[in-house]
Amino acid sequence: MDNLIQEKTKQAVSILHEMDIDLWITFVRETSAGGDPVLPLIYGHGLTWQSAILISKTGERIAIVGQFEENTARRTNAFDKILPYNESIKPHLLKEIDRITPNRIALNFSEADVFSDGLSVGLYQVLLGYLKNRPQYLDRIVSAENIIGALRGRKTNAELERIRTAIETTDKIYERTMQLIKPGMSEQQIAAIMHTQVKELDLIPAWDWDHCPTVNAGADSPAGHVSPTEIQLKPGDLLHFDFGVEENNYCSDIQRLAYLPSSTHPSPPAEMRRAFETVVLAIQNSTKAIKPGTLGKDIDSIARSTLTNEGYDEFKHATGHQVGRQTHDGGAIIGPLWERYGETPNWPLEEGQIFTIEPSIIHPDHGVVALEEMIRVTDTGCEFLSTPQTELILLKNE
Amino acid sequence: MDNLIQEKTKQAVSILHEMDIDLWITFVRETSAGGDPVLPLIYGHGLTWQSAILISKTGERIAIVGQFEENTARRTNAFDKILPYNESIKPHLLKEIDRITPNRIALNFSEADVFSDGLSVGLYQVLLGYLKNRPQYLDRIVSAENIIGALRGRKTNAELERIRTAIETTDKIYERTMQLIKPGMSEQQIAAIMHTQVKELDLIPAWDWDHCPTVNAGADSPAGHVSPTEIQLKPGDLLHFDFGVEENNYCSDIQRLAYLPSSTHPSPPAEMRRAFETVVLAIQNSTKAIKPGTLGKDIDSIARSTLTNEGYDEFKHATGHQVGRQTHDGGAIIGPLWERYGETPNWPLEEGQIFTIEPSIIHPDHGVVALEEMIRVTDTGCEFLSTPQTELILLKNE
Repeated sequence: MDNLIQEKTKQAVSILHEMDIDLWITFVRETSAGGDPVLPLIYGHGLTWQSAILISKTGERIAIVGQFEENTARRTNAFDKILPYNESIKPHLLKEIDRITPNRIALNFSEADVFSDGLSVGLYQVLLGYLKNRPQYLDRIVSAENIIGALRGRKTNAELERIRTAIETTDKIYERTMQLIKPGMSEQQIAAIMHTQVKELDLIPAWDWDHCPTVNAGADSPAGHVSPTEIQLKPGDLLHFDFGVEENNYCSDIQRLAYLPSSTHPSPPAEMRRAFETVVLAIQNSTKAIKPGTLGKDIDSIARSTLTNEGYDEFKHATGHQVGRQTHDGGAIIGPLWERYGETPNWPLEEGQIFTIEPSIIHPDHGVVALEEMIRVTDTGCEFLSTPQTELILLKNE
Repeated sequence: MDNLIQEKTKQAVSILHEMDIDLWITFVRETSAGGDPVLPLIYGHGLTWQSAILISKTGERIAIVGQFEENTARRTNAFDKILPYNESIKPHLLKEIDRITPNRIALNFSEADVFSDGLSVGLYQVLLGYLKNRPQYLDRIVSAENIIGALRGRKTNAELERIRTAIETTDKIYERTMQLIKPGMSEQQIAAIMHTQVKELDLIPAWDWDHCPTVNAGADSPAGHVSPTEIQLKPGDLLHFDFGVEENNYCSDIQRLAYLPSSTHPSPPAEMRRAFETVVLAIQNSTKAIKPGTLGKDIDSIARSTLTNEGYDEFKHATGHQVGRQTHDGGAIIGPLWERYGETPNWPLEEGQIFTIEPSIIHPDHGVVALEEMIRVTDTGCEFLSTPQTELILLKNE
């Protein structure tokens, strides 16, 4: 079995080195009540009493945990030093900080990125209380958002393999679903076919059950963040899906399009085909431009203009987001410089990041015309992790 | 169906009134990455963009949410005013605060209670940024820990019903399990019998899968926070369980004891019976003393001394904790004044709170001798929600 925690904590050391931050402290308690979102990546278990994961630029990886959690910490094989305590975390914690005497201490707070904002206000006050007699450290505290952004974004081999597995499972579920769909089924019935398979595999959907999958049958189906409705699939309809699974804690996120032939249109009508092909082209054009160092806003603009050049409306969302432990995994985005994306479209893409590419058209006659592929930024460009859809799937009309 | 969110937000108004706090703001974003633990109680859904739940002493209940979540907020039927936004939450939020002009504003931070500490440091900085031109409010910010403690602790009728249901389910699973147990089964096999039933009911265990149930067969089984082992149940063994389910988001937490007769001891041996009866007595003695206003430390002391008076060692945990949406639901505790419980054993018990009572003996010859009942503080005393176990369950030896 891959040792993800070991890989990620080692990677954290190299990121600290690169960013010249001496010490990164993840400080948590009672994580079953809602923990720090970085903890699964660098520890992989819950923690009960006040606990601290210390990672230093010089390569030290230290876990200070309650005595009952010492063995769990040990079994991660990710820490050089495990310091269990009985009464209070304070003595161990201060001793380690004093020994390392960091010039820059990163803590998990961020105005911009929720995944880097796992430290709660009360717990921060507890930490400041511990440091009361060491005022020299207070000015050295910095946000860990860049560390965490890099750590989540740059997938290790073990992470990449898990995501590939989730994509394979998604493909299989799509394939089986297409075989089982019958004319007249409602969007809800089609979603149920997929949910049944997810359950049989003992997995969960990549996002909330009620919206994963999204199913849109024909032009009357409401687009956007809507649960599958009672609208029935009719011959001549375009059928749109947005779906993914979470498998071994990693997610997939893929959109697909199928067509139900009618007697008058055994093949997709020309306008539907043109919209579909424009979406395919937007994916091809934008992914060709991806490589480390390019900005998400520039890639977004290529996808966006491919559609508007063909006379379609601009889509009201980003071209792509990162995928990892979460379907929307934070960090750099392939999107426009809209206020709600903050600075994230200006962050350069990095090797190892995994993005969706998901341009869309809302077509007045055919509904949602959208595909979503998953790509990985490589050292020289990008590679598709999903097998790009280039033809409309034809459903059986019987 | 009960409307829990409506009940709890109304209850919050009366708590604000009682505590003379003008405005309570729960400020969140992207809660799928780990939200504020109070949100399920006062909103009941996830929230994506920056969102604020405002509850005022004068009875106003306001939700400021992103436009795509307006309908969800409306369907809670818990808010007088729903303010959806598109670009930024700031204008709505400042307008409402200015209109209410609170003298005391409670926010969700707490050094002592993780369930009241849902505001993250970065998000707090965002909020302080919004209030930059209104420095008058900064001195009026107080912790919401007392509000949240009361809100979680004082169960409404709808909450009580859900907990009763979880207890009934737990009883049924215990009953069926006792019928299926056979001599020679391992602790893991016995746990699997219970897990199968939990799955069939489409429920989840009340705490983490690997430790719920805890199963201890005989004196060699390790006590404490340990997963079921391969140790096999032998005739003459005492069998101890700690188990609960989460049903409709509310939990149960119940310990039971059973005895597998042997040819030499068709009835439980005298020392086992004496330990069992002492635990039963500790539960009876301590619950008799419970009423609103008593302190948890005093109740704890009654249970504790019942055991030590009989010559047993003092148990190394609290006599009882609150149960609700979480198995360990925070707030006041029935425990000793040990450092790790902070001030919580000094907090007076309140009507409507639901506690476990779980004294324990680790017996050198018989292993874990512990029961756990659930009680509710009433206006004049307390009532059992579980049916107290007063006789050892006799397993079939065949």
